[in-house]
Amino acid sequence: MTGDESEIRAVVARWMEATSRGDTRAVLELMTEDALFLVPGQAPMDRAAFKAASESHAVAGLSINGKSDIMEIQVSGDLAYLWSHLSVTISSGSAAPVMRSGHTLTIFRKVGERWLLSRDANMLQRAES
Amino acid sequence: MTGDESEIRAVVARWMEATSRGDTRAVLELMTEDALFLVPGQAPMDRAAFKAASESHAVAGLSINGKSDIMEIQVSGDLAYLWSHLSVTISSGSAAPVMRSGHTLTIFRKVGERWLLSRDANMLQRAES
Repeated sequence: MTGDESEIRAVVARWMEATSRGDTRAVLELMTEDALFLVPGQAPMDRAAFKAASESHAVAGLSINGKSDIMEIQVSGDLAYLWSHLSVTISSGSAAPVMRSGHTLTIFRKVGERWLLSRDANMLQRAES
Repeated sequence: MTGDESEIRAVVARWMEATSRGDTRAVLELMTEDALFLVPGQAPMDRAAFKAASESHAVAGLSINGKSDIMEIQVSGDLAYLWSHLSVTISSGSAAPVMRSGHTLTIFRKVGERWLLSRDANMLQRAES
């Protein structure tokens, strides 16, 4: 495993950990200023929209825990892609948790010395719990 | 626009044109040997599965016409990504055509002198006609 690949894996681990803590600020530090999130049936979500959605999750008391199985990372210069199988459990108080799973394809960009998420395609669907 | 970017645009144009002709062989020439297609709710589809699906469309008399609005292309070395808004119309004889639209995030790899599709995330959903 190259240094770049292990750094990208560490970004994913920090992302999942910060998400589970509801720490929107820490997640925002792991993405580029121009980050874009693509999901089925919605307009692309930019950094500001991501921040607003994350903060509303925190206000609503949602707890989001994910597990990312990284299937591949390829790096060329300051660009890399990663695809994974991602499983997410969304909990809210005493309600039954909602589980979503599926694949992601993510672009990372090296900005200065740091790899940051810049584009993300999220193909998760609701899974049977 | 760089030479790499215009070459990638030409690959997309040839892909759409070969698809509309039902020319599976020509489409296969535009992807890497290890190409993978990620879609919601399905296992990743490799080159052999893509070929089988395309040939079954031809046997069933399906006609597939797409329009790709390329939103961004970024290149670094022998790797590039592209995201687009894609609209596809699937026609079959006298039945009402089915329309699907949404975003794609695609990885291209330069193999020798040619840019080829290597990873594709397809977030298309059925659209109202």
